[in-house]
Amino acid sequence: MPLLRSWVESANSADTDFPLNNLPYGSFLADDGEAHCGVAIGDMILDVTALEADGLVQMDDEDAVFAFGDWTEFMSLGAAAWAAFRTTVTEILAEGATDAEAMTAFLVPRTDAKMLMPFMVAEYTDFYASKYHATNVGTMFRGAENALPPNWLSIPIGYNGRASSVVVSGSDVRRPWGQLKGPDDDLPRFAPCARFDLELEMGAIVGTPSEGPVTVGEADAMIFGYVLLNDWSARDIQAWEYQPLGPFQAKATATSISPWIVPKAALEPFRVSTPDRERVLLDYLKEPGPMLYDIDLEVGLAPEGKPETVIAQTNYKEMYYSSAQQLAHHTTSGCPMSVGDLLGSGTISGPDKNARGALLELSWGGKEPVTLDSGERRSFLEDGDTLTLRGAAKGDGYKIGFGDCTGTVLPALDDPYGGRK
Amino acid sequence: MPLLRSWVESANSADTDFPLNNLPYGSFLADDGEAHCGVAIGDMILDVTALEADGLVQMDDEDAVFAFGDWTEFMSLGAAAWAAFRTTVTEILAEGATDAEAMTAFLVPRTDAKMLMPFMVAEYTDFYASKYHATNVGTMFRGAENALPPNWLSIPIGYNGRASSVVVSGSDVRRPWGQLKGPDDDLPRFAPCARFDLELEMGAIVGTPSEGPVTVGEADAMIFGYVLLNDWSARDIQAWEYQPLGPFQAKATATSISPWIVPKAALEPFRVSTPDRERVLLDYLKEPGPMLYDIDLEVGLAPEGKPETVIAQTNYKEMYYSSAQQLAHHTTSGCPMSVGDLLGSGTISGPDKNARGALLELSWGGKEPVTLDSGERRSFLEDGDTLTLRGAAKGDGYKIGFGDCTGTVLPALDDPYGGRK
Repeated sequence: MPLLRSWVESANSADTDFPLNNLPYGSFLADDGEAHCGVAIGDMILDVTALEADGLVQMDDEDAVFAFGDWTEFMSLGAAAWAAFRTTVTEILAEGATDAEAMTAFLVPRTDAKMLMPFMVAEYTDFYASKYHATNVGTMFRGAENALPPNWLSIPIGYNGRASSVVVSGSDVRRPWGQLKGPDDDLPRFAPCARFDLELEMGAIVGTPSEGPVTVGEADAMIFGYVLLNDWSARDIQAWEYQPLGPFQAKATATSISPWIVPKAALEPFRVSTPDRERVLLDYLKEPGPMLYDIDLEVGLAPEGKPETVIAQTNYKEMYYSSAQQLAHHTTSGCPMSVGDLLGSGTISGPDKNARGALLELSWGGKEPVTLDSGERRSFLEDGDTLTLRGAAKGDGYKIGFGDCTGTVLPALDDPYGGRK
Repeated sequence: MPLLRSWVESANSADTDFPLNNLPYGSFLADDGEAHCGVAIGDMILDVTALEADGLVQMDDEDAVFAFGDWTEFMSLGAAAWAAFRTTVTEILAEGATDAEAMTAFLVPRTDAKMLMPFMVAEYTDFYASKYHATNVGTMFRGAENALPPNWLSIPIGYNGRASSVVVSGSDVRRPWGQLKGPDDDLPRFAPCARFDLELEMGAIVGTPSEGPVTVGEADAMIFGYVLLNDWSARDIQAWEYQPLGPFQAKATATSISPWIVPKAALEPFRVSTPDRERVLLDYLKEPGPMLYDIDLEVGLAPEGKPETVIAQTNYKEMYYSSAQQLAHHTTSGCPMSVGDLLGSGTISGPDKNARGALLELSWGGKEPVTLDSGERRSFLEDGDTLTLRGAAKGDGYKIGFGDCTGTVLPALDDPYGGRK
């Protein structure tokens, strides 16, 4: 598919994340002081809440769908409504649209906009589904012989995360305290995390609810769109707490998502198949078609007041399991899925050393610190570091992006209880 | 504290779960076909939604609090409102109340009422905090030498569960399918769970939200009330999936809670301390006072069409960690807690063989099946089995109960996908 041209000239640049082919969903703080739903187009945001209020977009005969300023209500309308809306917005913004002049009143500059959570996260599940990542981490924790757990090639391994800790890009992240124990310590202590890390992931958002088990094809159809996702991780807390029941407080400080949800429709031209299976999958996990996407991903790290270094470059297609497979597995028990469920892909690492999606892997557990362009070295994150995740599917003369997914590490509090006992 | 007498005569019986001392919160299907908020009193339910609609109870100057028919909105009003409401209802129902006759119009027989979910579960966390349970399970899975994980005496181990799977007592539970692998199998298969189990737990409901770390005392104050909780568990699915990131689909079929939330205020006379520590706790986990409760618990199992056998009897005070400690630990990372978060205590087992809160332990992994009064034996649950959890704090001439927490096991579907591919 070629670039679709828009009368919003900045959307026709090969450099923008947001050509007419994309039309991602976000929420922003509007001039009226309220959250509004917006669609990104080039350097601008189309104010959908204002369009609806003026009767220029109507999704429901009776109720306002965008008045609350996030996309949860819209998602619940279902896939036919998603497609109809996309057609409407494409017509509004396409080159040659007859009412372009009237529509400029509904455009807001994107650079100044404060972005808000684009949907209400119902529940959050995080997976562990890149074979390179699982092998690297497993090798460090359990040795090369036992790197991949026995179930790994059969199950998209996942665990439930904490929805209340999901924040939008731009939110600062406070270094957590936690219970941790060094390898040479007899007893644990309560201290600030010393091995604070990122995880480069994609997030899939469930837009259609389910009650019983769903097939991989049905699961794919339930997905509303994708975001970039950074699952901040406290490695020292994780190492001490995670046996036998998995990560808990190590993953509960924050998970950042990109400000824009890219609709599945925009990613269609970039579908690719999961890699060859090393063990035959059970039928319920077999894919009826390509369910991964060719999306280039990178992580930038900027120390406070210094320029950014790109510390990792990888691609979503490196995953062993797709989000559709993960979602299908998630429903096997009869687990009901809800509108707004967020599924983290798991850290996305590729085969190369610079394609690793976490400092834990990049620095090999701290043994091989990463050297930044400024000459500083990083085993794990330091206070003041700003992380930026970027992602783009590359078309012919255009790209489909998500906007930067950023967060800055604030120092731990001196006393997390503020003197309270 | 003695029995407080009510003009609802059945509330003065030593046998009822619901004397005036209790006043637990539930939701029921009213004659108007809507969910109503109710308070149990003896054999009756006081219809609080109807009282509010008639202006006889008013919690908020502007908005109806009980109109939606569950207690989420009420919880969000905060602890002062909880206390004021309890005083109001106590006055309405106390022996000698002047308007007793008028109030009879707001009483509904409890036996006929269809009970509904009493609150909206925001997120669900399950713990692993009975030392007897952890030791039993650990011995079976890892041997007596490694029964308790190294962190167990320092951390109230927990994992995030699935809020969407929480159901109210009386809901049938369909035996799940899942991916499982027998010890002698080379490869896993997709099959109905053959080792379906219960877990006898208490659930604590968070009524006050938090942003940063909270102390144990603050955590205790945040708890709105307690329910009985049965965390249905697919042991064969769990055994294959749970390494390295913890239980996932094994715990996502259903978690049943009692129909009535017992307010913390009703349990005050029954507070007891946690057992002696075997390892000194870090300061942030130390309790400023007794935070467990002396609540007798039991599990009844009735095969289809046969009488019930009580298969386990234990007490909530057997826990090593209290819900307040669990909640305090839950916030250490800065994890925000929300109104309606549900914290499962973890399976509650006592020192005696018949005090074990799961069939996994009672039958020692299936090696020592439990014999029922009917002569049947159980290693794990069979189709048609009805489980009933009961709990009561025993006062002088009265008890504080939760109502039965029941569920019947339905057979697995022949094809969970109904022929869909």
